[in-house]
Amino acid sequence: MQIGMIGLGRMGANMVRRLAKGDHKCVVYDVQPDAIKAVLRPDVVSASSFKDLVAQLATPRIIWLMLPAALVDENLTTLIPLLDAGDIIIDGGNSYYHDDIRRGIALKEHQIHYVDVGTSGGVAGLDRGYCLMIGGEKETVQYLSPIFSTLAPGIGDIPVTAGRDNAGSTAEQGYLHCGPQGSGHFVKMIHNGIEYGIMGAYAEGLNILRNANIGHKENDNDAETTPLRNPEYYQYDLDLPEITELWRRGSVIGSWLLDLTASALLHDPELKNYAGHVADSGEGRWTIAAAIDEAVPVPILSAALYSRFSSRGEGDFADKILSAMRHGFGGHVEKNGKS
Amino acid sequence: MQIGMIGLGRMGANMVRRLAKGDHKCVVYDVQPDAIKAVLRPDVVSASSFKDLVAQLATPRIIWLMLPAALVDENLTTLIPLLDAGDIIIDGGNSYYHDDIRRGIALKEHQIHYVDVGTSGGVAGLDRGYCLMIGGEKETVQYLSPIFSTLAPGIGDIPVTAGRDNAGSTAEQGYLHCGPQGSGHFVKMIHNGIEYGIMGAYAEGLNILRNANIGHKENDNDAETTPLRNPEYYQYDLDLPEITELWRRGSVIGSWLLDLTASALLHDPELKNYAGHVADSGEGRWTIAAAIDEAVPVPILSAALYSRFSSRGEGDFADKILSAMRHGFGGHVEKNGKS
Amino acid sequence: MQIGMIGLGRMGANMVRRLAKGDHKCVVYDVQPDAIKAVLRPDVVSASSFKDLVAQLATPRIIWLMLPAALVDENLTTLIPLLDAGDIIIDGGNSYYHDDIRRGIALKEHQIHYVDVGTSGGVAGLDRGYCLMIGGEKETVQYLSPIFSTLAPGIGDIPVTAGRDNAGSTAEQGYLHCGPQGSGHFVKMIHNGIEYGIMGAYAEGLNILRNANIGHKENDNDAETTPLRNPEYYQYDLDLPEITELWRRGSVIGSWLLDLTASALLHDPELKNYAGHVADSGEGRWTIAAAIDEAVPVPILSAALYSRFSSRGEGDFADKILSAMRHGFGGHVEKNGKS
Amino acid sequence: MQIGMIGLGRMGANMVRRLAKGDHKCVVYDVQPDAIKAVLRPDVVSASSFKDLVAQLATPRIIWLMLPAALVDENLTTLIPLLDAGDIIIDGGNSYYHDDIRRGIALKEHQIHYVDVGTSGGVAGLDRGYCLMIGGEKETVQYLSPIFSTLAPGIGDIPVTAGRDNAGSTAEQGYLHCGPQGSGHFVKMIHNGIEYGIMGAYAEGLNILRNANIGHKENDNDAETTPLRNPEYYQYDLDLPEITELWRRGSVIGSWLLDLTASALLHDPELKNYAGHVADSGEGRWTIAAAIDEAVPVPILSAALYSRFSSRGEGDFADKILSAMRHGFGGHVEKNGKS
Repeated sequence: MQIGMIGLGRMGANMVRRLAKGDHKCVVYDVQPDAIKAVLRPDVVSASSFKDLVAQLATPRIIWLMLPAALVDENLTTLIPLLDAGDIIIDGGNSYYHDDIRRGIALKEHQIHYVDVGTSGGVAGLDRGYCLMIGGEKETVQYLSPIFSTLAPGIGDIPVTAGRDNAGSTAEQGYLHCGPQGSGHFVKMIHNGIEYGIMGAYAEGLNILRNANIGHKENDNDAETTPLRNPEYYQYDLDLPEITELWRRGSVIGSWLLDLTASALLHDPELKNYAGHVADSGEGRWTIAAAIDEAVPVPILSAALYSRFSSRGEGDFADKILSAMRHGFGGHVEKNGKS
Repeated sequence: MQIGMIGLGRMGANMVRRLAKGDHKCVVYDVQPDAIKAVLRPDVVSASSFKDLVAQLATPRIIWLMLPAALVDENLTTLIPLLDAGDIIIDGGNSYYHDDIRRGIALKEHQIHYVDVGTSGGVAGLDRGYCLMIGGEKETVQYLSPIFSTLAPGIGDIPVTAGRDNAGSTAEQGYLHCGPQGSGHFVKMIHNGIEYGIMGAYAEGLNILRNANIGHKENDNDAETTPLRNPEYYQYDLDLPEITELWRRGSVIGSWLLDLTASALLHDPELKNYAGHVADSGEGRWTIAAAIDEAVPVPILSAALYSRFSSRGEGDFADKILSAMRHGFGGHVEKNGKS
Repeated sequence: MQIGMIGLGRMGANMVRRLAKGDHKCVVYDVQPDAIKAVLRPDVVSASSFKDLVAQLATPRIIWLMLPAALVDENLTTLIPLLDAGDIIIDGGNSYYHDDIRRGIALKEHQIHYVDVGTSGGVAGLDRGYCLMIGGEKETVQYLSPIFSTLAPGIGDIPVTAGRDNAGSTAEQGYLHCGPQGSGHFVKMIHNGIEYGIMGAYAEGLNILRNANIGHKENDNDAETTPLRNPEYYQYDLDLPEITELWRRGSVIGSWLLDLTASALLHDPELKNYAGHVADSGEGRWTIAAAIDEAVPVPILSAALYSRFSSRGEGDFADKILSAMRHGFGGHVEKNGKS
Repeated sequence: MQIGMIGLGRMGANMVRRLAKGDHKCVVYDVQPDAIKAVLRPDVVSASSFKDLVAQLATPRIIWLMLPAALVDENLTTLIPLLDAGDIIIDGGNSYYHDDIRRGIALKEHQIHYVDVGTSGGVAGLDRGYCLMIGGEKETVQYLSPIFSTLAPGIGDIPVTAGRDNAGSTAEQGYLHCGPQGSGHFVKMIHNGIEYGIMGAYAEGLNILRNANIGHKENDNDAETTPLRNPEYYQYDLDLPEITELWRRGSVIGSWLLDLTASALLHDPELKNYAGHVADSGEGRWTIAAAIDEAVPVPILSAALYSRFSSRGEGDFADKILSAMRHGFGGHVEKNGKS
């Protein structure tokens, strides 16, 4: 099929490459001319503007937006007046599903079809394929299936779950029409919420392993330090690159995220290349908001999010309040602190 | 090699089968005669008692214990007097590593070698192989490598992490000498702590997905109920078996635990076969204890453990205190409760 | 001053009584005629309808709404057309501050002043006074100060914090103009979020004390049960009513919530009158939502909220997923469960 | 009574002063001669060594240790040989109750009575009195009641909980015999665990209030930053010193810890005198360990402990792992970081 792609960052550029390999025709645009140049090849042509991109696409046009969530609405404002009834807009970025619902209603007045696609796979998606969680009208989603099946991983070497007899289920190919508008990003949002939790579980566990040698260290004997009662239990110098490589085979906690961790630790065992200021891109927050609206307890997913906040110093004022209270009732003076 | 196996439960029995397939000779014992019968085959012979098992093994004997953690010490008490200097005891169950350290010291006086092996893989280990985390003296562990390499998965179809140049690292085969006695179970303990966290992350996320349709439901308008402010955002009837199948391909959160979840949801989408009283077998608790000794923050791993406690009603008294306080300050009467 | 009170539940009725004691004139209305009768006395007259209430009030009218948050908007819709420019509406219930901001803007078009008052104190407020967190225009709030100072506790026997030299600060009297519209309910929202956390801290701690005798009990020795390693450390039969009474004097954790707990445990040490299904009335949820918007880590406040959700069974499906996974990888069968 | 006091730090010195005011005779010792000088007065005499202290006390001797937990055992080793059968040792510091049980058994062989006293009250205890949680043999504890009643606050102006008819309960005076040896420190341990939770609840809530003005700030629009969707909801510049003063009167969350917070914020609204590196002195950790042994869920108390760990940078390696994973799957580069 012919498709327009707006936004050629890490994700968008690779998706164009994968689409082109799948014999789709792409018309591409990005505010950075270099980003456009980097993806040009047979079957991939550049547009100099939204207007030019629209002009090069046959109707009904298919336009895929791969933009930071905060920029989607302003781009849509420019784009919509250039389109015709029957055209299709796909938001493949990380939009909040509330916005999908709103946009779906707004675009319907223009008879433009709006499809939201949660896209997982990261920079490896070019080779592995992208896991696609799709929301929108049934007919539109079905019409786009050649696109989705190209972008998705396919069955690959992952055997279908035993007992499935779901002829025509695209889930086995790595893409799924989840429900009406917003449901694609809803499912992706929860996917990312889970991702935060899994990442945090590995990170916490590895931090314990790393400190398994604290019994070697000297203890301070003052009222501000909790002595380690049994240093003999903490005498292990564990090799994290080896352990993470080990767990990749046969263990219950094998996963792609573990593969990535093993690779990172192999090349930088102390992770000196990182400061540990961990960003969060919205989905983790929205996951908690949805859970709270639903009254679903999510202590793990929340803890994962808060660790990221804390990693950026957002808890510092609360910590100071604790120190101030301790000073107030016990006269405690911070050991490494100022007062 | 020749090896004695004591304990033929789900794990022990399958390990005997895998060892026999690998051309090792096994002498097996269990308190349940039926458990013994179930594993007999060429190269697997039965023993009628510890004494008989010991008699059938050539020295230096290799004896693998695959028992509930709480039973290991009493079995060792019976076994040790029957052994000779130079014999090797392997505890492959889920012992607390403190016990390993203590036993290692005690057995050293008898010149018996003690090796602790944390074993992951579950019931699938017969086919997939077992991921082995090993603690003990270097020479003993090396001596046992034919056993370990048979039980372990081998490289299989999981490519070695790019950039590794670690000739002789057995981690790539799925087993690893982690360090001195206790370190095998230490690493396995943390492995299971991580496992709890990952499992909980999936469980919480799927619970949110399942409740994505609460906007359909009627709300009570009383002071004891928080109204759902935007029911229009919770109108999705999501298909969990399809979504979990989907995520298995190309997504960032693919894993073996997800594979198992997809299978469980396929066959029982409402999970009616489960009451949700989730056991914890010790490692999750010990993980937290180690983290606290090390002063390592583990909010995710703790939350995962506490969810299991709560699932068994262990938080009920605390909940009642909350209701009693609410009654005290606000005159609130429990909506579904007694007072 | 003369004031109209709409909503005579637990809170509204007592506020009318306190206002009357303070020589204010009240015109009162409630949909339950009995609720009206219960508060009538000299200086408190009844209204048969909103229209009647409005007619009995001199302009500029002061009308205080003390209603469940979910009912405020529909009541306002009826009330507003009956009012005149310059009248004042006070929402003293537990509205979401977003609604205050919206209402403030809407009522401004009618030249009606809107004031939001977060009210803490519970059923004891009649005697102790109400702590009032107030949002709105400065002049309006100042105009209402005779009302606020009557409802508030006053300095009482709580000495002003040493070093304060804040002549005119009403905080010392127990009421405070926090800022523009919505800020009163914002501060009250966080107040309640903190309240959830404090309540949960007591509840968890008392639950540990209550189980300090588990060493008396027999342990199961199976792979599904974690044995208690040191029963000798858990041999205490602690007297919770005595301990909570004790902590009320001289300890760092004395508080009014502890007073209430001591009283509840005195009269019902096992709390048999409660089922432990703990409601949450909105502020706890909104507190988390605000924290997440601000990227402030709030693990304690979240945990407190989730415990309430779990107490009502909202985590059950997640628990079942854990059991299903455990069955999948380990063949574990729930001990008290079905499968 | 006559009592020997060993350890004249913040707590011990004030306890001597309070005992002397109560007409007890104190013989005091500290390794710092200045600490001794500071407490000398009529009825308080100094000892130059343990031997001297023991010599000055009539039998049966009463010796109160007020030392950092880590130093108690070595002091006991020196002290015990100097004592006679029938003497009484009181550990009033923050010992782990496991140690009390061990010491009680060991001292029994010398016919020395051991009493553990958990002491709350902090530096204010001199005036307010100390809340005493006591473990030990019934007769010994009763024998010491003149000491305890002097140190304790007494009923003061806190009315006894309505409905109590517990003639002779000392809880109403602020001291309580909780049970056998170790139970005093057990109850104090949980007391401190609760204290951590309450402190954290205030700290988190105040941190949200402090950031209620983030809507004023500019947002970055990049894929690493979550945009604030509704800046209009975060326009409040809240006055924390005033709000904490306000909450002290009539609110549900009034407490002594809040009083201290109000004072700290009054004198240093930005808490610039603190770095926010929060110590933990053991009880918070032991509380979690006890909860886990008992299988009691304690998400709030754990979160409070972990916030302290994180405040000291103990989570940094885990954070780096998260950044490394994000780099691995998404090519994300830390915004404020190195890679």
